[in-house]
Order: sequence, then structure tokens, then C-alpha cells
Amino acid sequence: MKATFMYAAGDVRVIDVPDPIIEQPSDALVRVTRACVCGSDLHPYHSMPATPDGSPMGHEFIGVVEAVGSAVTTLSVGDFVISPFAVSCGTCEYCRAGLQTSCVRGGFWSDPQLGTAGAQAEAVRVPLADGTLVKAPVDANADDALLASLLTLSDVYGTGWHAAVRGGVTAGSTVTVIGDGAVGLLAVLSARQLGAEQIILMGRHRARTDLGREFGATDVVAERGDEGIEQIRDLTGGLGSQIVLEAVGHRPAYDQAIGAVRPGGVISRVGVPQYDEAPVGFASLFGPNVTLTGGPAPVRAYIEQLLPAVLDGTVAPGKVFDRTMSLAETPKAYTAMDSREALKVAVRP
Amino acid sequence: MKATFMYAAGDVRVIDVPDPIIEQPSDALVRVTRACVCGSDLHPYHSMPATPDGSPMGHEFIGVVEAVGSAVTTLSVGDFVISPFAVSCGTCEYCRAGLQTSCVRGGFWSDPQLGTAGAQAEAVRVPLADGTLVKAPVDANADDALLASLLTLSDVYGTGWHAAVRGGVTAGSTVTVIGDGAVGLLAVLSARQLGAEQIILMGRHRARTDLGREFGATDVVAERGDEGIEQIRDLTGGLGSQIVLEAVGHRPAYDQAIGAVRPGGVISRVGVPQYDEAPVGFASLFGPNVTLTGGPAPVRAYIEQLLPAVLDGTVAPGKVFDRTMSLAETPKAYTAMDSREALKVAVRP
Repeated sequence: MKATFMYAAGDVRVIDVPDPIIEQPSDALVRVTRACVCGSDLHPYHSMPATPDGSPMGHEFIGVVEAVGSAVTTLSVGDFVISPFAVSCGTCEYCRAGLQTSCVRGGFWSDPQLGTAGAQAEAVRVPLADGTLVKAPVDANADDALLASLLTLSDVYGTGWHAAVRGGVTAGSTVTVIGDGAVGLLAVLSARQLGAEQIILMGRHRARTDLGREFGATDVVAERGDEGIEQIRDLTGGLGSQIVLEAVGHRPAYDQAIGAVRPGGVISRVGVPQYDEAPVGFASLFGPNVTLTGGPAPVRAYIEQLLPAVLDGTVAPGKVFDRTMSLAETPKAYTAMDSREALKVAVRP
Repeated sequence: MKATFMYAAGDVRVIDVPDPIIEQPSDALVRVTRACVCGSDLHPYHSMPATPDGSPMGHEFIGVVEAVGSAVTTLSVGDFVISPFAVSCGTCEYCRAGLQTSCVRGGFWSDPQLGTAGAQAEAVRVPLADGTLVKAPVDANADDALLASLLTLSDVYGTGWHAAVRGGVTAGSTVTVIGDGAVGLLAVLSARQLGAEQIILMGRHRARTDLGREFGATDVVAERGDEGIEQIRDLTGGLGSQIVLEAVGHRPAYDQAIGAVRPGGVISRVGVPQYDEAPVGFASLFGPNVTLTGGPAPVRAYIEQLLPAVLDGTVAPGKVFDRTMSLAETPKAYTAMDSREALKVAVRP
């Protein structure tokens, strides 16, 4: 089958690989209906050292079950499934607590120990399939818009939702979202669904911030740094934002969050931090009693909850996809997202 | 009157100063019944550069109102009062939200802008008296044990309580408390009052950890660093602690907290951080979805709530005072606490 590999920064290729097979009794094989390129795939695209064997790419997909191992009890051949970006057993302490990203048996996609390959491919072997996959009453030939929205449940929608949930967004909240990528925009949508009254989106790409307004942003701030912080203060009666959802992951976004948050408020991060240390002392977090929370979203915990509004069309998170390409074109999807020509690209094998 | 000033690291003197007077209509003058030395007073005691005029010391006291300004409405001469370690107006956005440490009109004790002097003195001018002070139905000649417990409401008990509340301690919680100083021990008491099932106290001073056990600690871990973390894991079924209350403020205590906390758990800091930057990246906070919270305790928000159990003797937080000295002896109180001969010293003017 065809699958996408990265060989070095900027070097993505679609190559022939052996078809995946059932290796463990708890595995399922899934034929991919749609996969996509993630903002986090752009980190290695910028910095990955050359690797002769390459790395399999992609961790977001929806598809149809093609085979199941002997121990799989909840899935059958032909089921339409949504796959979270992390593999989870569904039974350990952390899975039961809704923190499947810390599952003691699972791991992140393409974890060498799990032996999983990338999802930007024709098919995928899914370990711990009963715990990991979520069935949905969908025809794999459904229209593109619905498939796109279902695909967001694999990562970006659940990640935006996690930011909002961890941030404690509730009816009447004042929320600032840093970042107008797919996760930031879906954090806006999530904050709106949870009842936020004021949602300030910090972003500078007009097409994206327009979609942010459609998702529920009440204000858009294009400025960054001190100027951006000033604007947030102006928009919040001088107090700052009760809740800041940080969907970027670079250090300036962290500093922006510190500047924008109100004393007693919450910074909820879902942008994967590209830094190790940051200010946490008296002047930043401690003095104003600011809470720092967030992490990789246990999207598995949210799929069932978010699915109904996707299926009945109440929300259309799939609007973050502004391009669909064939699997053979996946390298172009990276280029388009890296150059910001595309917000997020769906891949159709 | 007599008041305590620090002139340099290790140089504390009790000197004659003018009696305080009412300066603003919202002021009250309070004759000090008991003050005390705080663990945080030891930071300048170690590091303060020589200052010819000295700095007034002390931010914890109980006493009797001796005079009130013309705008004071809730206090009368003769009232027994408990003073939080921060001045607050009681009416601003933050005071109404129970975050009096961020009051827009108030500030921390001895703030030059407020013109307040230290509480290790015979009397104190209290600005914004209606917002700051809390009346209690107590005779200033009550027994030492009750006065000691009331004095903890000025800072250390409310600070331990804040740690536990911000940490989200609830019935059945597993809690680790780092630090066996007065705040750590009262964080143990607070966690117990909030229903924690397992309370692990990290400390190595037997007399203190014994008091910790009396306050509700179920386990004591004397080891530090990796060995201490190992012990926490052993005591929590390998998972780590759901909630870690950090009552020290030095960087190794932060690292200890990161090592001790369970994925999805909370680190609640009330030890004033003596560092600015610390790990917050994927390996520390983000990957395991750990929440970092806490700050200076708005003890004003907690006094009314904690007072009844102190008055009726249900709890005796004043047991953290193991020594009482006269005001003239205050310099010795610093020496005794610095050498760890004393846990916490009450000062009787």
C-alpha cells in the first residue's frame, strides 16, 4: 500500500510499504477514509535530521474496519470508526479517569513500542482497538463536509475542547484564545458551546479569524506582544481575561498568555510546548494566583460527547479543512500548510 | 512605642518609634495582642543588604481596636480583631471574588505605598480597616492556646487552607504535603478537614512530623529527591499523588512536586517561590496534564469560614507555635526559627 514518510526536514514522500496485518489479538485493521496533516507535523518538517529509513507520518484518521483480532469484542468488519491520536486500553486507572493520553498500555501514534505506523496511508493497524476506536453510525461515502467534521474528532476538535474544559470555561466566561490555527479556532467553537460570553481570538490571518468569528469569537486581536496584551486589557475592562487558551506552543505565546490573564485566572495550554523552562515565579504565575493547566488532549474521552452535534449538523468543525488532496499529493499538503496557503489539509487515500 | 526593624541580614532590633496615628478616614489603630515571626521573614534575614533606616517587620497579628477613622463603619474601639497579612478594600472586583491579595486598593503588609509599618510592634495602623480586619468574639485576655490558634488565621492556617482548596482536595483525595514548617503542617490539617483520605507529609524534623500526624498525616516521608519520590510512588500504588501541596518555595521542592504528582494531578504552591523559571514543558507539566496552581493566600476570604472550629476547639492550629517571647526578645525569635530550634515563635508585646 501507499504510505507517507518523512526523511528529513522538508522531505516528505509517499512510498510503497507492506500492507499492515493483525499482529496482536487486540488489533484492528482500518482502511483509511480520510487522514490529514497536523500543525504538529510541521515541527519535524522544520527540524527533523535526515533519517535513511524515514518516519511514518500522520496520527489523525477516520475509516472502516477491515479486520479484527480474536480478542476484539466491540468492533466488526465494516464498522465506521474515528481514531483518537493516542492509543488507549480503556480499562486502566487513567483511561477510567478520562485521561487516555496517560494510558499505561497505550501511547501516542507512531510510538515505536506500539509498532503503529502513520495514518497518512491507505490502511492502519490499530492496537488495543476496543479501547482506542469509536464507532459512528456513518456511511464512508457520506459527503465531504460531514467526513471533515468527523475527522476533527480525531484530534483538533477534541484538543480545542480539552483546552476549554481544562480552562474551566462556563456560562458567562471571558476567554482569550491565542492562535488561529485549527486547534485555536476549535477552542473558540468549544468555548462558545460551553457558554463563554466574550471570546477574544488572537490571530492575524483574516480568513482564519473570519472563521473564528463564525465559530463564536466576539473580538479579534491581530496585535502581538505588549500591544496585543494592551488590547486584551482594553477589551476586558482593564482586568485581563479570566481564561486564556494557548493553542500555539511557542514561548512568545506563553508570555502572551501570562500578560493577558487576569489575577486568579487560568491559562490552559494545548499547543505542544517547544520550550522546557518558563517563568512561574512571583511576577508571572504565583503573585496573581494564576493557574497553569492543559496538556495533550485525551480526545478519546470526548468523542462520544461531541459526536451528536457533529452528526446532526449543529456544529461544523470540519470547516477548518480548506483543502482536500489525494494521498499521492500529501507532500504538497505539507508545503501548503507550512507556507500558510492552507489552514488544514484533508488527505483522501 | 517599641517596634521591630531589620537593618541587614541577621540584624534585627527592637527600637523606639513614634506611636502610629490615624492618617486616613478608613484607618484603624490596633493594639497588638500577639504577633509572630513568619518563615518568609527568614528570607530577608538571610539576604537583606544593609539599610541605614531599617525595614519594619511582621505581617501577622491579632489585637484590639484602639481608634478608628471617621469612615470606618464596621469596627469600634475595643473590638478584638484578626488581621490578614494583606490589606484589602473589600469592595473591588478581586475582593468580591475572594482574591483579596489582588485587591486594587490594598497590598501586602509593609507596602511603602500603603505606609503601613510592621506588626512585630506594640500597635499598628491598619488602612482600609473595614475591608481588612475581621472581628472575633474573643477576650484579649483569653488563654494562650486560643490566642495562638486565632493568630494562625492571620496567615499560616489560611495559607495552608488555600493550598488545599486550590489543590482541589476533597473527600477521598490522596495528598502529599511538601514541607514541615507551619504552613505545611496546617496544609495537612486543612487537607484532613476537607476529607483527604491519604495525607503524606514530606519532612524530616521529628517533632514537626509528629505534629503533622496529630493534624492528620497518614504517612511521613523523610527522604528527599529521587528517594523521596520513590517513596511517594510506593505509598500510592505506583501512581503518584493526585494532589501535591508545596509549602517550601525553593526550586528543589518544585522538582519534588513534579516527581510526586500523578498524571492529571494538581500541584498547589503556597511557598513563596525563590526562583523565576522552572520546567513546564512536555516532560514536566504538559505531557502528563498536570495543573500548577496556588499563590499568596487571600486569607481574608477564609477567616470567617475557619473561625468557628477554632473558637469551639475542634481544631487547634495554634499548636504550630512552640515558643512565645516578649517583644523585646523578637531578635531571639529570628535566631531560634532560623536555627530550627523553634518551629514558630509568637511575640507578646
